[in-house]
Amino acid sequence: MNYKALNFKDKLALFDEQWTPKVIAEMNDYQFKIVKIKGDFVWHDHEDTDETFIVLEGKLRIDFRDGQVELSDGEMFVVLKGVEHKPYAEEEVKMLLIEPRGVNNTGDKGGKLTAENDVWI
Amino acid sequence: MNYKALNFKDKLALFDEQWTPKVIAEMNDYQFKIVKIKGDFVWHDHEDTDETFIVLEGKLRIDFRDGQVELSDGEMFVVLKGVEHKPYAEEEVKMLLIEPRGVNNTGDKGGKLTAENDVWI
Repeated sequence: MNYKALNFKDKLALFDEQWTPKVIAEMNDYQFKIVKIKGDFVWHDHEDTDETFIVLEGKLRIDFRDGQVELSDGEMFVVLKGVEHKPYAEEEVKMLLIEPRGVNNTGDKGGKLTAENDVWI
Repeated sequence: MNYKALNFKDKLALFDEQWTPKVIAEMNDYQFKIVKIKGDFVWHDHEDTDETFIVLEGKLRIDFRDGQVELSDGEMFVVLKGVEHKPYAEEEVKMLLIEPRGVNNTGDKGGKLTAENDVWI
């Protein structure tokens, strides 16, 4: 039989809303999530886990208390556990997040940007 | 300070050899490895872990005992633990592997394509 690969562009075309990570795959107890963001997120950290950002389209800036990193498509960055960070995108950026199942997008913070967890697309 | 993103193209430009995964980042106890392959790999499985393939450039086919999957750039596939598989590429393909630290490329098989583990670039 022919198995089907997961195509990032096809999956991204299925929704428009921002700040709502959608799970597209799992590897052991880790999840791959695609998300679109524009504007400023909230400062937060994940005290128990690192978190990986891979930019698929657009430009992402991640602010840290002591600096920042800028990512374009074809670039990745791992934010280490416990490190406060705030993603920001001037224009919409489409990206892939990789982190353990159960991680909330706002980490230790709540607020209106907290997304429902474990939503598949 | 400005942190630096990992750029897949830049990292891929640093080596020519095929079948030798190079670690570019870690997330908790998982590793991100880039690799170039062309031709036929060996049938193998990883009995303890799933393994993620993300194609960066080119086309990859992964054969299974009961079928196959084809991946182009911008596509991913998770091979579940214990599932025998054999990557194949007619022309060189450049890809990103994600799997726990310590996983051997040939899994339960040895042979001349077994690469040194935990080589960073």
